[in-house]
Amino acid sequence: MQAIKSLVAASPGPQYLTGDKASIDAFIDKFDVFLFDCDGVLWSGDHLFARIPETIAMLREKGKQLVFVTNNSTKSRGDYKKKFDSMGIAAKEEEVFGSSYSAAIYIARIMKLEAPKNKVYVLGESGVEQELESEKVPYCGGTDPLLRRDMMPEDFKNVANGSLLDDNVAIVLTGLDYHPSYLKYALGMAYIRRGAKFLATNIDSTLPSAGSLFPGAGSTSAPLIKATGQEPLALGKPSQAMMDAIEGKFQFDRKKACMIGDRLNTDIQFGIEGGLGGTLCVLTGVSKKEEFLAAGAEVVPSAYVDELGDLLG
Amino acid sequence: MQAIKSLVAASPGPQYLTGDKASIDAFIDKFDVFLFDCDGVLWSGDHLFARIPETIAMLREKGKQLVFVTNNSTKSRGDYKKKFDSMGIAAKEEEVFGSSYSAAIYIARIMKLEAPKNKVYVLGESGVEQELESEKVPYCGGTDPLLRRDMMPEDFKNVANGSLLDDNVAIVLTGLDYHPSYLKYALGMAYIRRGAKFLATNIDSTLPSAGSLFPGAGSTSAPLIKATGQEPLALGKPSQAMMDAIEGKFQFDRKKACMIGDRLNTDIQFGIEGGLGGTLCVLTGVSKKEEFLAAGAEVVPSAYVDELGDLLG
Repeated sequence: MQAIKSLVAASPGPQYLTGDKASIDAFIDKFDVFLFDCDGVLWSGDHLFARIPETIAMLREKGKQLVFVTNNSTKSRGDYKKKFDSMGIAAKEEEVFGSSYSAAIYIARIMKLEAPKNKVYVLGESGVEQELESEKVPYCGGTDPLLRRDMMPEDFKNVANGSLLDDNVAIVLTGLDYHPSYLKYALGMAYIRRGAKFLATNIDSTLPSAGSLFPGAGSTSAPLIKATGQEPLALGKPSQAMMDAIEGKFQFDRKKACMIGDRLNTDIQFGIEGGLGGTLCVLTGVSKKEEFLAAGAEVVPSAYVDELGDLLG
Repeated sequence: MQAIKSLVAASPGPQYLTGDKASIDAFIDKFDVFLFDCDGVLWSGDHLFARIPETIAMLREKGKQLVFVTNNSTKSRGDYKKKFDSMGIAAKEEEVFGSSYSAAIYIARIMKLEAPKNKVYVLGESGVEQELESEKVPYCGGTDPLLRRDMMPEDFKNVANGSLLDDNVAIVLTGLDYHPSYLKYALGMAYIRRGAKFLATNIDSTLPSAGSLFPGAGSTSAPLIKATGQEPLALGKPSQAMMDAIEGKFQFDRKKACMIGDRLNTDIQFGIEGGLGGTLCVLTGVSKKEEFLAAGAEVVPSAYVDELGDLLG
């Protein structure tokens, strides 16, 4: 019995905070910085969860630094700021860190390809384009309406002979694309086969919305992965390229930072692999508590609550 | 030396037939039935390879049974017959066996779901629809122009609450879809999450056309695989469900049959796993001879030619 108790004490499992005011206060006090996932934590699609503005305000009153870390690639930081405004949550654009921004930073500041051979072929929405523009990275594809059309017989020839391709494209970057087309996939495949570097803002399998799950950004890269046999370098959570960029921008002690999210295999893994002081899982999104409470669970948060608003006690 | 020679004699590797008239005749004489892949063997897209009509005519003159086995799901057998006509190749509709037909047979004759809960949600082109009709299987989706539109905010709600879903759908069937849309993927994902059986006409990674490679039917199922975590049952080559259906229809001795194709991991594997008497690889398509001549190659044909017309000697 003694041996078993010691073992349990050594691996206490995640702490359940909902309704336990003293434990909540002790947990919050341990951290200076909170990194938040947004979809599934603050809201689901257009549905704001209960007591979110108040919870955010409470953390600000305690002097915490807040960073909103999202894999949503369809929105730029500016778009996200508008979403926070419309939801009645106080947030600054500088506090938002999205996967499109992470990808733009990686391309502009890490890859640093020489112009003009530094163009990005985008499969994704305007959030990707805006963040590339903010880092002065040239791009094509994306929301170009000319690519939202049927594949014609001559397109096969013109992709094959290269006349539809831009010679300056050196990178294919995929994000969630609500407007897929066969022509877009064919161009992406052709660029990768020609040697373009294959990047993804993120490869989330699903997108939570309207209380259900929809295809995530991973569904945009999946056809290209199947067609080329290559895997993209993903720059959203749980990629540590994103954590490095966040730390570079906000300058904090990782041991005094906590990642809050709804997905074990992106958010919580992101915080654990990043060596943060803690991780908090909320049960308003993708992952269920059975997944991390199960014996042998691979990704286990430090603590969990039913919903973020429970932090108000 | 003697030991090595014996070993070589026991595993002679594939026989190269081009330019060797005596070996070609001996090879052809071994078989009563030739199963042909089409794309990459007879033609690439709209480009007919040299001496194809004459080669087909020569085999017919020798009294061979010919079966055209194609994973191309966008065309029905009737469509294929028209393609043969336009290419100047003599062929009968009954000689064509496509992956859409294979899928329709599997659904109608093997699954045999009871009406009305036997509807198929199609992600693919009219070839799939026509073959389902030929087997009297009800379907939705497919070429429905109402699904070729942008995903609207209310679509998320209506997919989530089920009002956009057809209660009779019990199967999701994917083929190559030249008209992908986020709404189509969202519906397919919702049906699979609700318990629909996930089938694919085929999961070819690439489609040869215009002398290059384009995304194949596998690119249609890939987003759903990523989003649901489920793999489809593929009914085209190399699935032996297709071989069983072909044998059931044409009634032949497998040892007297030869599969001719350009892809090791679909055509040649299909023939080997089906226990056919021989396999012939042509080098006008996807696979290169280096792949099967390499030491340790997993899928090795009995013989190969540079192009099918070389069988004329």
